[in-house]
Amino acid sequence: MRCGEIIAVGSELLLGGRIDTNSVFLTDRLAGLGVEVRFKEAVGDDERDIITALRTAIRRADVVLLTGGLGPTADDRTREAVARLTGHRLRRHREALASLRRRLKGWGRAVSAPQLRQALIPSGADLLANPIGSAPGFSLWWRGCFIAALPGVPAEAEAMFMREVAPRLGAAAIQTMERIERRVLHTFGLPEVEVEAKIGNVLPRGLRLGLLSSPLGVSVLLTAVEVTGTKTGLARLQTLERMERVVRQRLRRWIYADGEQTMEQVVGRHLSERRLSLAVAESCTGGLIGHRLTEVPGSSQYLDRVVVSYSNRAKVDLLGVPEAMIRRYGAVSSEVAAAMAQGVRIQSHTDVGLSVTGVAGPDGGSADKPIGLVYIGLEAAASRDGKSVHRRVQQFRFHGNRHTIKLRASQAALNLLRQWLLVRSSTSQKEC
Amino acid sequence: MRCGEIIAVGSELLLGGRIDTNSVFLTDRLAGLGVEVRFKEAVGDDERDIITALRTAIRRADVVLLTGGLGPTADDRTREAVARLTGHRLRRHREALASLRRRLKGWGRAVSAPQLRQALIPSGADLLANPIGSAPGFSLWWRGCFIAALPGVPAEAEAMFMREVAPRLGAAAIQTMERIERRVLHTFGLPEVEVEAKIGNVLPRGLRLGLLSSPLGVSVLLTAVEVTGTKTGLARLQTLERMERVVRQRLRRWIYADGEQTMEQVVGRHLSERRLSLAVAESCTGGLIGHRLTEVPGSSQYLDRVVVSYSNRAKVDLLGVPEAMIRRYGAVSSEVAAAMAQGVRIQSHTDVGLSVTGVAGPDGGSADKPIGLVYIGLEAAASRDGKSVHRRVQQFRFHGNRHTIKLRASQAALNLLRQWLLVRSSTSQKEC
Repeated sequence: MRCGEIIAVGSELLLGGRIDTNSVFLTDRLAGLGVEVRFKEAVGDDERDIITALRTAIRRADVVLLTGGLGPTADDRTREAVARLTGHRLRRHREALASLRRRLKGWGRAVSAPQLRQALIPSGADLLANPIGSAPGFSLWWRGCFIAALPGVPAEAEAMFMREVAPRLGAAAIQTMERIERRVLHTFGLPEVEVEAKIGNVLPRGLRLGLLSSPLGVSVLLTAVEVTGTKTGLARLQTLERMERVVRQRLRRWIYADGEQTMEQVVGRHLSERRLSLAVAESCTGGLIGHRLTEVPGSSQYLDRVVVSYSNRAKVDLLGVPEAMIRRYGAVSSEVAAAMAQGVRIQSHTDVGLSVTGVAGPDGGSADKPIGLVYIGLEAAASRDGKSVHRRVQQFRFHGNRHTIKLRASQAALNLLRQWLLVRSSTSQKEC
Repeated sequence: MRCGEIIAVGSELLLGGRIDTNSVFLTDRLAGLGVEVRFKEAVGDDERDIITALRTAIRRADVVLLTGGLGPTADDRTREAVARLTGHRLRRHREALASLRRRLKGWGRAVSAPQLRQALIPSGADLLANPIGSAPGFSLWWRGCFIAALPGVPAEAEAMFMREVAPRLGAAAIQTMERIERRVLHTFGLPEVEVEAKIGNVLPRGLRLGLLSSPLGVSVLLTAVEVTGTKTGLARLQTLERMERVVRQRLRRWIYADGEQTMEQVVGRHLSERRLSLAVAESCTGGLIGHRLTEVPGSSQYLDRVVVSYSNRAKVDLLGVPEAMIRRYGAVSSEVAAAMAQGVRIQSHTDVGLSVTGVAGPDGGSADKPIGLVYIGLEAAASRDGKSVHRRVQQFRFHGNRHTIKLRASQAALNLLRQWLLVRSSTSQKEC
C-alpha cells in the first residue's frame, strides 16, 4: 500500500479557522488510486519551513502533494522550496508563460511583473496545466517519491489533480492492483460510546473501524486494510461489504447518509422525489437551516421561504403566533414551536412547515429554560385537501457553545423532517 | 524564539471538512507566550502514525501540543503513543479516576469499563485537569521538549490550555523575555495582488508580511520577527506599530476589522452603539447572513428578523415586491433588491433593511444574468420620523462555486451595511 502525505502551504492555515476542502477531496481521490493519506501538514509561507516539511514527508511517504504557495505575491514560496530541496533551478517555462498570457488576456488583463513568477518551475519538472486559474502546477519524481505542487484554490487544485495528477499516479496504481476501499456511514442521535458498543464486536481481521464525532453526529468509517498473507483485494472487498450490511442493520435508526452525502442533500432528495414543498421558521438557529438547505443546487424547487423570527414581535407578525401564547409559555416552548411550524406552513401554502425555537446562549438561560433547550416543530398536510395534518414537536437539551448548539439544533430539525418523510413514504405505500 | 508544533489526532481530520478551531486558539495563545507555531499536523487514530508525527515534532519544536485521541473508545490512542515513544508505562491515575467519577456522577452516570481508559496517563507525567469534560490531559518534559496532550473538543482544549498549560509555559516565557507580536488586518473588496502593490514597499527589516486570501477578503498579517543583532523586543514592537499605522492608512477604505474580529461582530457593535435595529431580506444567500449575524452573542438586541424569500411568491407575499416589477426586471435586478430592502424594513418597523438577490448557480444563469451576478440593497431611515430615507443598491459579479458566491455575497452585504453605518455616524457628528 503506497503512503501519501498532503502539505498545505500558507500562513493562514496555521491561524486556522478554515475548512480544508482540498484535503478532503485529495484524500478521497488518492485512496481510489491506492494511496493512503496518513499525514496532513500545514506550514506557513516560509521557504525553510516548507523545505523541512517536505523533507519529512519524503522520508515517510511515496506520494506528496503540496497545495498553495504558487501565487504571484512575494510570500508564495512553494516553487523556491521544491527547487532548493531537490537541487533543481527555477526556470521560466515557455508553455507556462504562454498559457498565463492567454488566461489573463481572456480576463482582459496583461501579465504584470509579479505574475511572471507564476511561470517559474523547477527544471526537470513536468508542467501541470491549470484549467481554471492562472497558476500552473508542476510534478517531479525525487528519491523514489512523486511530488506534485497544486494551487491553493480548491476548484483549481481539484481540476488539476483530476486532469494532470491522477493519470500520472493511475498508471502506477494499476500496476500494483491496489485500491483502498472505504465506507462512511453518518449517524445522528446516538453518543459515540453507544455507537461503538453497538458495532464494536462485529469487526473481523482486515477491517479498520473509525468513529468521528462532531456536532452533526457520529460517522462510522470502515476501511479494508491490507493483511499480510493470503487475503486478496477481492476477499477484502467482500468482507467490507458484509460488514457494511451488519453495521447498517445495527444502526438503522440513526444512519441518515453515507459517503460524501450531507443531511441537507438527503432531505432535499426526499422532498424532490415526493414533490413536496417546504417552509421553515427559525429562531435560535438564525438562518442556519436555510443556509444549509440552500447549499444544495436546485433547492429552489422545494424550498419556498425561511422566516427567521428573532424577535417576539416577528413571531407574532410574520407567523401568527398568538401573543398570549408567548406570554404564557415563553418563546422557547413546545406550544410556540408548534405554532411557528403551523404559521409558516399556512402563510406559504407549502406541504411542510418546520420550526426551531431555543436558547443558544451564552445569555438568556434560566433554571426553567436552560441554555441548550431547543424545541423543534413540524406540521405537514396529511391529505391533499390539506384538511388533516400531522403535527410533531420534539424537545432537546444540547450541550456546547452558541455555535455548537446552533449546529446541533439545525441537524436535529433536518433529521426530524427526514424521519417524517420516510414514515410518510412507507405509509403511502401501504395505502396503495 | 521557541518553536511550537500542534498535532491534531483523529482520522476525521484526515478526511477534513472541518474547521480546526483548536489550532486557531492554541496558535494565538502560544504566540502570547513567546512560542511560534510553525507546523501543524493532522494524523489518524493510528498509534504508530501518532508516534511518527510526535518523533518528527520533537526534533523541530520546543513545545508540542497534541489534541484529540483521549476519549474512551478503542480508537483513542494518544495516551499509548506518548507512553510508548517516551518509554513510560501507562498507569491508572488515582486523581484522574476520582475526578472522572465525580464528573460522570454529576451527569447522573456511572463510569463504564471503556471510560476507565481515560484515567490512564504515562507514569511521570503531570495530570492536566479538565474543567469541562470527562477526559483528563497530561504533560511531560522529554528530551528538552514540553509535550502536552489535550482533548479534541475545542472548549475543553481551550479551558485546559488556559488553566493548566499556560502557567507551566508562562514561567519559561518570562525567563526568555520574548513575545511574538502580530497584527492582523482584514480587508474586503481589493484583490490580493493590489493589496500587495499598495503595501509591498513599506516593510522594514525585522517585520514579516503575510497575505491571506479567502472569499471573505484578504487579510494582512504583520509579524515582528527576531533580527540577529541589536534590535530589542521593544524596538521591534515600535517598528511594528509604526508599520501598522502605515498599512492602516493605505488600506483604510478596505479594512473592516482586525485581530480575531469578524465582519458580523463589527456590524453588530456599530448597530448596538447606535441603537439601530435591523431586518434582512435574503434570496440567493439563503439564510447565511442571518446565520452569521446570529453567531454574535446579544444579536437579538438589534436583529429583528430575516426573511429568506426564496420563491418569487415569497418576495411578493412577504416583502410586498410588486409582481409586475419581478416580471419586468427579473427577480435578480437592482429594482427588486431595492424593493426587498424597503419591504423588510417597513414590515418590521426597523431602522435599517438589508437585501440580497442574485444567481448562486450552478443552474439559473443566462447571458443577461450570469452566475455570480448579485444585487445588494440597503434602505435606512435618515431621520427619526422615518419620512426621509437613504437608499443604496450595489451590483457585484462574483466568481467561484455556489458556496463561495454565497459567502462573498454575504460579506459584501454586511460590508455595505458597515460602510453606511460609518458614513451615517460621521454625518451625524457633523450635524452636531
